[in-house]
Amino acid sequence: MKPQRKTLAAGACVVAALVAAPLVAGANDADRSGEVKAAIDAGKAKNVILLIGDGMGDSEITAARNYAYGAAGRMALDTLPLTGEMTTYSVLETDPTAPDYTPESASTATAWSTGSKTADGRISTTPGTDQDLTTVLDKAEAAGMLTGVVTTSELTDATPAAPMAHVAARACQGPANMGPCPQDAKPAGPGSIAEQSIDHRVDVLLGGGRSRYDQPITGGPADGQTVRAAAAAAGYQVVTDQPGLAAATPGRPVLGLFSTGNMATRWTGLPATKPASGPQRCNETNPAAVAEPTLGEMTTRAIELLSTPAARGNGRAAGQAGFFLQVESASIDKRNHVSQPCEQIGETVNFDEAVSAALEFARADGNTLVIVTGDHAHTSQILEPDATPAGFASVLTTDEGQEMMLSYGTGSTPTSQEHTGSQLRVAAEGPQAANVVGVIDQTDIARIMSRALGVR
Amino acid sequence: MKPQRKTLAAGACVVAALVAAPLVAGANDADRSGEVKAAIDAGKAKNVILLIGDGMGDSEITAARNYAYGAAGRMALDTLPLTGEMTTYSVLETDPTAPDYTPESASTATAWSTGSKTADGRISTTPGTDQDLTTVLDKAEAAGMLTGVVTTSELTDATPAAPMAHVAARACQGPANMGPCPQDAKPAGPGSIAEQSIDHRVDVLLGGGRSRYDQPITGGPADGQTVRAAAAAAGYQVVTDQPGLAAATPGRPVLGLFSTGNMATRWTGLPATKPASGPQRCNETNPAAVAEPTLGEMTTRAIELLSTPAARGNGRAAGQAGFFLQVESASIDKRNHVSQPCEQIGETVNFDEAVSAALEFARADGNTLVIVTGDHAHTSQILEPDATPAGFASVLTTDEGQEMMLSYGTGSTPTSQEHTGSQLRVAAEGPQAANVVGVIDQTDIARIMSRALGVR
Repeated sequence: MKPQRKTLAAGACVVAALVAAPLVAGANDADRSGEVKAAIDAGKAKNVILLIGDGMGDSEITAARNYAYGAAGRMALDTLPLTGEMTTYSVLETDPTAPDYTPESASTATAWSTGSKTADGRISTTPGTDQDLTTVLDKAEAAGMLTGVVTTSELTDATPAAPMAHVAARACQGPANMGPCPQDAKPAGPGSIAEQSIDHRVDVLLGGGRSRYDQPITGGPADGQTVRAAAAAAGYQVVTDQPGLAAATPGRPVLGLFSTGNMATRWTGLPATKPASGPQRCNETNPAAVAEPTLGEMTTRAIELLSTPAARGNGRAAGQAGFFLQVESASIDKRNHVSQPCEQIGETVNFDEAVSAALEFARADGNTLVIVTGDHAHTSQILEPDATPAGFASVLTTDEGQEMMLSYGTGSTPTSQEHTGSQLRVAAEGPQAANVVGVIDQTDIARIMSRALGVR
Repeated sequence: MKPQRKTLAAGACVVAALVAAPLVAGANDADRSGEVKAAIDAGKAKNVILLIGDGMGDSEITAARNYAYGAAGRMALDTLPLTGEMTTYSVLETDPTAPDYTPESASTATAWSTGSKTADGRISTTPGTDQDLTTVLDKAEAAGMLTGVVTTSELTDATPAAPMAHVAARACQGPANMGPCPQDAKPAGPGSIAEQSIDHRVDVLLGGGRSRYDQPITGGPADGQTVRAAAAAAGYQVVTDQPGLAAATPGRPVLGLFSTGNMATRWTGLPATKPASGPQRCNETNPAAVAEPTLGEMTTRAIELLSTPAARGNGRAAGQAGFFLQVESASIDKRNHVSQPCEQIGETVNFDEAVSAALEFARADGNTLVIVTGDHAHTSQILEPDATPAGFASVLTTDEGQEMMLSYGTGSTPTSQEHTGSQLRVAAEGPQAANVVGVIDQTDIARIMSRALGVR
């Protein structure tokens, strides 16, 4: 079932029905034990799709649901049948046995990519000793599977980087950004995240960060050539807009660079202020985003390119069938950092469209593990509309016509909000999905995905 | 397995082992599908124990785990095998089809007690029309089952009140507090929450709130008598301390009043301030709490009194076997409201001891549904120790020797922090427990418990 968003005009009666339902005793009075049991599949998966809402804690999920689907509504990400909580702490660079309770996106993405904890800022390398950690994407590719990474951030940002690159510092995004990790620079090292993404020959790379790929490579056989040109020379179809993405064909890898930096948010609105801004309705058509593909469109296209038999011409015809795909909605986090509720909620809705696309494929395919979670918790909290929080806030009028305050108080200025350390919801569907139930650690995700695909 | 807390002295090596484990690839590389499937039981339960951490969101759980068990440790509440998320919104008094995104403890307790949404402040009565809503405890008692309510707040506070009373306003706790709900006052009405708890003949009532029971009843046959005296006259064993609780015998109902108001918190410490207080270690032996039974002790005793065959002499010998028990740790919420991190964490640990006691009984009994959740989310957030939040904060040095900041920013003063509207973790074990998996609403809890007990 693809959840339908109501319009505000149509919403009143729809919401009335949904909210009124629980007032009727016995409305949901059916035992779901059999349904939950039937969702448990201990078998192997042909494909794995991991969808990450960056900075998407339970508060961010609830805020988006309240705004766009109603408090009693259900998003696509609510429909996965097996659910649990996940701890996200990282470890210290100086002592890998000591926890850091408030992680960031490099250490968390390393955790689920490799099954190992690392220090904040590291991309699939060990704390202290800077050794490469093998990722699930590495193993899938070694087994001859197809692989993909999709994001609304720069393709070289921490979350998309971790499955496909190994560098000491997340800042080392392009060949001109190697200051923090000279040991990784080409020609002696494996190069920047952008270079590694191409050298790795990830089959589908879709997101922002074009400026990183337009930096010239220093040293080695491609000296002076941009990463983008090197990608084309290596056989990549390089596309930069929606028509280009639509025209890409399976059989050769695809590099889609739809923005110089991070992709635009779908929604815009007033930032949180003190005292609170609003009441406001969000603008759902940001002109800057119209020319870019949505995360749902990129996810749908990535699945098409990775699941078609012709894609095996990418050079892995003899390998294991199936694909590994990671999809990230990056700006739930980025706009949480700068206290922008409409942008944050819009990117959660954007994410949910990607979840919907993944579930549509997985449910038709019947042999795909889908995991949906966040990487770390974040700032925004849902308060009464007349609250007077210590920080910055905005009152939003939701689609169902009620007021909701979102508050941002983890930083002393509106643009300095920080991650939080709470455990997060994790949800899954398909083979091995039951392993997310209960309380798991983020590193368990790597083991669940590897076991599902049978890669070691 | 009863989780063991480490001492700080002994903690270093234990924690090192726990935290280091995920660094070893394959450490938890076993498929749990069969284990999760085996935990699903579609049958009926003899007993139901519902444990509520008031104001215990995922952030509060994580903070307590980090402090007392380590980031990689596991609390008793982490060990329940089936887990999901729960929405907690209430509805408006003026329009019961419209959501209020940030509920309080009366509307939330009404939701799980009755299966119906109500307006903030109401105790098991309908919004707008003020009709009584039948509770699971009402139904269990009508079926001849034994019932119990245990809390660290006043027994007449909103969370313990909702299963056993029906009043228009949560403030109507004792006969002298009936100003907000004159229509409920005796002799024409059912009386205050204290009076209803006795008239309801709840078999085990343990908590604080002695001053409410020491108020004189106005009107009716007990005119001028205190509620406490009326309880004794009605056959209750009234106890006020640990020896009294230990000496209570099954066969007659028990009213335990261990404090004039709310019971003392187990831990104390510095409140959150701006800039942040600490680094501090919490004082885990509050002198004021030493003379009172702990929540774990009250829960163990309640289960003993409700599960022994002799208890059926309470007047229900011909009824359905088994019991319904609600246990609440109240001051996770109350100390969150006033920015006291040590008190909040200590009461979460206190709660976990009660969970441990319930699980110990349930696992030996094999026929008990245990549900563990919160009633609504709250303020506290886990930040980096050097963060500069907009609100109030304290840095704690955890048992594993690392620093963790807890921040409170939903109110403009340290003593005015507010509830938040995030969905919450819900966990369960035993018959019908699988019904908490996925995304449920708080009202579903009532239907799950009623179905498990076979009461209508």
